Amino acid sequence: MSVNFQSLAEEFTKFYYAQFDSDRSQLGNLYRDHSMLTFETSQLQGAKNIIEKLVSLPFQKVAHRISTLDAQPSSPDIGSVLVMVTGELLVDEEQNPQRYSQVFHLIPEGGSYYVFNDIFRLNYS
Amino acid sequence: MSVNFQSLAEEFTKFYYAQFDSDRSQLGNLYRDHSMLTFETSQLQGAKNIIEKLVSLPFQKVAHRISTLDAQPSSPDIGSVLVMVTGELLVDEEQNPQRYSQVFHLIPEGGSYYVFNDIFRLNYS
Repeated sequence: MSVNFQSLAEEFTKFYYAQFDSDRSQLGNLYRDHSMLTFETSQLQGAKNIIEKLVSLPFQKVAHRISTLDAQPSSPDIGSVLVMVTGELLVDEEQNPQRYSQVFHLIPEGGSYYVFNDIFRLNYS
Repeated sequence: MSVNFQSLAEEFTKFYYAQFDSDRSQLGNLYRDHSMLTFETSQLQGAKNIIEKLVSLPFQKVAHRISTLDAQPSSPDIGSVLVMVTGELLVDEEQNPQRYSQVFHLIPEGGSYYVFNDIFRLNYS
């Protein structure tokens, strides 16, 4: 595989967070029925449950800012990609961003990629 | 697969950090030739290169403390496991721990697991 996994990871996260921050109810087509989300202590499976969880989060305005983004191929052959992001989350009218860490595991499908694994944690200090 | 991925992730990270903190030169058997490590901005491949990098890190004493640990199966069938850790790193005589995030992608092999992907980042605030 000669897929440029770093570029892919950058494109994916740019698209994902732009969509999340403008209208997170529209992220469903990035997940499948066997996709998993761990959001803090909540565990969800399936696109429908994952989007319900994301939509239910108690904020109106949200902005993600990426601090670091690292990617590696996650298999020798199938072209899947592992992405780890650390960044800052700005919510509603709060002045201080919250730091977070997030992992995406992206699986190729029909010329594009979907999210198989998604793990999100705020980093309390 | 009915592998308890959360218990596996807890056992693995406990063992890994105990070994890292006592003698990190002995971690080589957890990696393979195709394993990858991203450590801050460095990218390494192969058990030998990975251990050389870990051994070269400029501290004598080190202690990892896990704050959060989350795990998900990373494939529908082969039993591989994705682990995300956030935690604190105490180095040498420094008083203030540094926060970090780390991802491990564990692949089953002969009744045990090896690390295929390893991504480590300090979280500067």
